[in-house]
Amino acid sequence: MNPTLSQFGKQMSQLTGVRAIMKDIIETLRNSGDREFINLSAGNPVILPEVEQLWRECTQELLASKEYGEVVCRYGSSQGYPQLIEAVKNDFNARYNLNLSDRHILITPGSQSLYFYAANAFGGYTDGKLKQVVLPLSPDYTGYGGVTLTPEALVAYKPKLDIEDSLHRFKYRPDFSQLQITSETGCVIFSRPCNPTGNVLSDEEVDKIAAMAAVNDVPVLIDSAYATPYPALNFTAMSPRFGENIIHCLSLSKAGLPGERVGVAIGDPQLIQILESFQTNACIHSPRYGQAIAALAIASGRLAELSQKVIRTHYQRKLELLEATLDKAMPQSLPWFLHRGEGAIFAWLWLKDLPITDWEFYQRLKQVGVIAVPGNSFFPGLQTDWQHKHQCLRLSLTATEAEIVTAMKRLAAVTEASYR
Amino acid sequence: MNPTLSQFGKQMSQLTGVRAIMKDIIETLRNSGDREFINLSAGNPVILPEVEQLWRECTQELLASKEYGEVVCRYGSSQGYPQLIEAVKNDFNARYNLNLSDRHILITPGSQSLYFYAANAFGGYTDGKLKQVVLPLSPDYTGYGGVTLTPEALVAYKPKLDIEDSLHRFKYRPDFSQLQITSETGCVIFSRPCNPTGNVLSDEEVDKIAAMAAVNDVPVLIDSAYATPYPALNFTAMSPRFGENIIHCLSLSKAGLPGERVGVAIGDPQLIQILESFQTNACIHSPRYGQAIAALAIASGRLAELSQKVIRTHYQRKLELLEATLDKAMPQSLPWFLHRGEGAIFAWLWLKDLPITDWEFYQRLKQVGVIAVPGNSFFPGLQTDWQHKHQCLRLSLTATEAEIVTAMKRLAAVTEASYR
Repeated sequence: MNPTLSQFGKQMSQLTGVRAIMKDIIETLRNSGDREFINLSAGNPVILPEVEQLWRECTQELLASKEYGEVVCRYGSSQGYPQLIEAVKNDFNARYNLNLSDRHILITPGSQSLYFYAANAFGGYTDGKLKQVVLPLSPDYTGYGGVTLTPEALVAYKPKLDIEDSLHRFKYRPDFSQLQITSETGCVIFSRPCNPTGNVLSDEEVDKIAAMAAVNDVPVLIDSAYATPYPALNFTAMSPRFGENIIHCLSLSKAGLPGERVGVAIGDPQLIQILESFQTNACIHSPRYGQAIAALAIASGRLAELSQKVIRTHYQRKLELLEATLDKAMPQSLPWFLHRGEGAIFAWLWLKDLPITDWEFYQRLKQVGVIAVPGNSFFPGLQTDWQHKHQCLRLSLTATEAEIVTAMKRLAAVTEASYR
Repeated sequence: MNPTLSQFGKQMSQLTGVRAIMKDIIETLRNSGDREFINLSAGNPVILPEVEQLWRECTQELLASKEYGEVVCRYGSSQGYPQLIEAVKNDFNARYNLNLSDRHILITPGSQSLYFYAANAFGGYTDGKLKQVVLPLSPDYTGYGGVTLTPEALVAYKPKLDIEDSLHRFKYRPDFSQLQITSETGCVIFSRPCNPTGNVLSDEEVDKIAAMAAVNDVPVLIDSAYATPYPALNFTAMSPRFGENIIHCLSLSKAGLPGERVGVAIGDPQLIQILESFQTNACIHSPRYGQAIAALAIASGRLAELSQKVIRTHYQRKLELLEATLDKAMPQSLPWFLHRGEGAIFAWLWLKDLPITDWEFYQRLKQVGVIAVPGNSFFPGLQTDWQHKHQCLRLSLTATEAEIVTAMKRLAAVTEASYR
């Protein structure tokens, strides 16, 4: 069976970025035999007992109510389960002093779907002209590489680097001298906190991007999958930004519900309406069980509380350990730089002037039993040839503390050998 | 906020077919005041207590197991939850004497998503040439009108009609003298049993369509949302057809799980792989709770059993009542024809030579407190001007028995008045 694919079929049947590398990782783990690997490649969050318990309790509550049948045995509205919309509306209005109505909110089956709808509804061809999907700061989430049906629409910008030499730290900043958001821009997307770097764009940077986009009525999607109030995986203070052209995008995947695929878009009703219709045509509506338990957990305040107390603490402790271990184990004299760990569940390491590629470095790490993700997977849409792309590594904070310590010591040794 | 939409954005933000009419229906019901309507427009299945109980029990079983955390608190594979894939594989292999492996099966968040992936991966433009999405027999499922990003790709064919004059019954047949499946066809889709008509294409008709398509390696998607073994909403004997170019598409929406969006594709691993990659890029994977409880219900045989004993019986009884009431109440002398009720949860009425349009008829029915769906919404992709399109009505079997009797009597009176 060898069917002809349409151009979308060809595009969408390619796995991009980290998904392509995952194959190599899965095979490495599968063929490892007796060999034990420390896996720092995972994006799959740790099951935290308190968080699992929350979802179990919400499920029991749902089962004990008459609502259960309405939730699973009936179709729902494309916009989402009304109780979840209500809970998000009330919580965000109270927390951020907003004036959201139901019509400002859309529930999607995970936030990846949301980016898929937006990238194709706002980006792509219109009357023969190409509207771009702009990623204002590269590196960013690898999944943005797969969401557009029109790959030539995706355009990412090289950042500026703030480097703190003596501390071996650095931070990416949007390069406003280069960034272009014009009438040819369909929409803007970025993650805040950022997967893979842990960067949190400042309020001023976000406001500036949004203002540039507002001039041409360009929607700005702020991927808040790691942001406050849930999962609260920001380690630095941050406030969500709202505005007429901003679509604030939540995900509950890092708040313990990745299996259930719950995404939330908060924005101008006109934008929400467009995305909702896209959803109706593409998949009717989001599954409702995840929405129903999320409604209970958000309305009671328990999700926000656990996010701060349990989820954030868990990953922040791991990050501190990773930093402390690297600071001790890595050679002072080499130009290694860790990105400022402002959030998310990863650390991002830059090995400046590394004499080998990130892919070769990844292979050498495997030889000492450590798996990390070569950084070049995280620059979707960046057309510039930039050496930096091949000098980075993403390190997941989902391993145990002991594993992180051991892995960082081995990584330090591999680093030293690689520069030699 | 007035963003420019891409051509896909314009296309996907339109609601087609019955979804456009739903607005009028919802407003009618909302503004009804004291007026009581009998609603025969619903596609939302009835909550059957035994079926709800099954899902409650499976949920308790899941909660009692350690697996719960793995199901909801972790990302899963894009292909689907392994236990559900295993359960479907074993059940279908045993029932239909097949030789399916895991790689023949993909789980999607509802079967609408599956048609969306297929219509755009196989249909649409490739190297500047348009590949068609062929609906071999129109009328068919209204949702097919929304799944393609390239509306000009959708092509439906007028059927032949088998008419039993004296019995006031008829049945659509594919018109093989017209139907074209060629190298310009990207894929073929049809529902069996058919929403809205209740038609079940014969095994021979299906085999003939599949053989025509096989010549050019064209995938044939058989939408089995109402078929045996679950929800078993066929009232006539039928056997699912399998083959190298056939993708058998299941949905659990009519088996009591519409809220959870569980779709299943069974077909050639090469086709499955293409759809799976599309899914990875569009939404990562299907939600897992619905998959987990479905795995339990399928593996234990309970879902198939309840489907036959409870679900089929429920709707078949309603259909018999509707037929008996119409046979008694409708004027013998008028050319009204009910489609042979071979399955699904609707009856399909054809009022031959009706002097008014189906839209006007719908309005008159509303005036006597009955809501049905005008038939012209169910001919997506049919370009021919065909009077028949405006002479039909879809009647849902989800109302109560008493409501169905009352509604059919009123419908008979409106029919009589309309021909006068």
